Amino acid sequence: LRVAPFNRAVAGEQDFLAWITPRQKPGGLVERAAGDDLAVLRWPGDELLLAGVDQVLDTVHFDSRIHSPRDIGRKAMNRNLSDCAAMAALPAAALATVALPAGAGLEYAKELYLGIEQAGAAFDCPLVGGDTGSWAGKLAVTVTIFGRSAGVRPITRGSAQPGDTVYVTGALGGSLLGRHMNFEPRVHLARQLAQSARLSSMIDLSDGLSRDLRNICRCSGVGAILDADAIPIHPDAVITAKDGRTPLEHALHDGEDYELLLTCPLPVIPLPGLYKIGVITADTGIFLRDGTAQKPLEPLAWEHPL
Amino acid sequence: LRVAPFNRAVAGEQDFLAWITPRQKPGGLVERAAGDDLAVLRWPGDELLLAGVDQVLDTVHFDSRIHSPRDIGRKAMNRNLSDCAAMAALPAAALATVALPAGAGLEYAKELYLGIEQAGAAFDCPLVGGDTGSWAGKLAVTVTIFGRSAGVRPITRGSAQPGDTVYVTGALGGSLLGRHMNFEPRVHLARQLAQSARLSSMIDLSDGLSRDLRNICRCSGVGAILDADAIPIHPDAVITAKDGRTPLEHALHDGEDYELLLTCPLPVIPLPGLYKIGVITADTGIFLRDGTAQKPLEPLAWEHPL
Repeated sequence: LRVAPFNRAVAGEQDFLAWITPRQKPGGLVERAAGDDLAVLRWPGDELLLAGVDQVLDTVHFDSRIHSPRDIGRKAMNRNLSDCAAMAALPAAALATVALPAGAGLEYAKELYLGIEQAGAAFDCPLVGGDTGSWAGKLAVTVTIFGRSAGVRPITRGSAQPGDTVYVTGALGGSLLGRHMNFEPRVHLARQLAQSARLSSMIDLSDGLSRDLRNICRCSGVGAILDADAIPIHPDAVITAKDGRTPLEHALHDGEDYELLLTCPLPVIPLPGLYKIGVITADTGIFLRDGTAQKPLEPLAWEHPL
Repeated sequence: LRVAPFNRAVAGEQDFLAWITPRQKPGGLVERAAGDDLAVLRWPGDELLLAGVDQVLDTVHFDSRIHSPRDIGRKAMNRNLSDCAAMAALPAAALATVALPAGAGLEYAKELYLGIEQAGAAFDCPLVGGDTGSWAGKLAVTVTIFGRSAGVRPITRGSAQPGDTVYVTGALGGSLLGRHMNFEPRVHLARQLAQSARLSSMIDLSDGLSRDLRNICRCSGVGAILDADAIPIHPDAVITAKDGRTPLEHALHDGEDYELLLTCPLPVIPLPGLYKIGVITADTGIFLRDGTAQKPLEPLAWEHPL
């Protein structure tokens, strides 16, 4: 018979709420921010609501022994902003959830929150509520994001067509040297691209080019051929190549680049900073062409069982 | 120089996604459910969007050694549905986020998900997306909920007025004997109440009557006097009273009752199952009247530092 209390307000929680509540203000779509059980938004009737959630977990997406709470909070928000970018949505509001290791302290909680808040503010995406609790566990930070279509049809993963050109928005690989903590979500570029060209599919590169391309191909029922020489390789991928894998392998498989991978019927999109890396095919295989050789592009990854 | 991979898709993740994706279907407000970076909803232009998030953490809100994943998932969703009830909102859609201990396995993940899904389905609240990852940490389950005003003005915590009557919707105390895992969110009752009477404030009882009443009073700038004889005491509170506290003390402070606490200018709301327990006062103190004696009602709670 267990009668010990499970759900107790934590000491410091009232202090944290007293600090956080006035930071969350009404305005824009927000009728009422934090302070009640739910935030109240007034959504424009002519706009789609795009909603998603993404968590960052200690030792998986960051290392709390190395990274500051400000940086961890920023990454949590930026990953969600990157999800908005992936669909060409305009970030509108967010909710923040934190499972805080017992004893982390009020200042640590505030720093996490400021990281989340500041990353959102850079894209006019206010925090309107959330849930903070402490436990005898590791740090987990979850952000829920609300994006608005704001005149741009959401770009999905499922409409790439044979013959479409495949693009990425930046150099890839080696992000674990540090870029995975301080990337810039491609929100503005995504909106610009979606407004200036008829994009057939888009995704943000979180799992790595080889995996995320496979995702687009699976959703669209197509395949692809990438051109090895065309993959933009980040200088960090060259540094990490000391581990025995080539810079190209790092660019193909590392993950957490947070660039956009997109497809378009146009062979040339008239925007700077876009790299044309391949073509979509009716055959559902995914291949890497290197000179005259062409071999299957497998999604390499370190795997951990569920 | 840390180059070990942080963010790797987990083995079993693709199986899990293959299982979960077809369960999440478009329909109602949902244009596109899971499968892209964000779900796409079409929000009715004449309705407010109420949004919130609530996490349940192992050893805080449940004990994974004792409670089944189905029950844990259900509790995570029901707490969020209870937040909808607290504002008289109609649940519309939800997102589920799970941080799964490494090695928990695919079946455990599915059971958690089914618990979340089934609890939502009981209120026509489909899951439209989420994020599942595994880590070397404890189980954390986070649900984001979207509620719609659907013709009912949201009830907040901030508009209780002196002279209002204070009500609760059910008997309190001792929920840790088991009710905290399998309560029924008072969604329908909340909507019925808000439609039939002019409620001035409402909250769901998660932290305990003494704390949640304090919350309403603080937000509304008022105080309250409760009548000790009028507090409905749950039989479970009598059983837990073996610990030396009285059943009334359990009813006042235990928490996780998930009944509604509400205030209304009317002295009698013509609905069954409502208990009239006190009155709102202009004086901001909160008191318990027991016969002729009246003493301050302190929010008792076990506290853990942040």
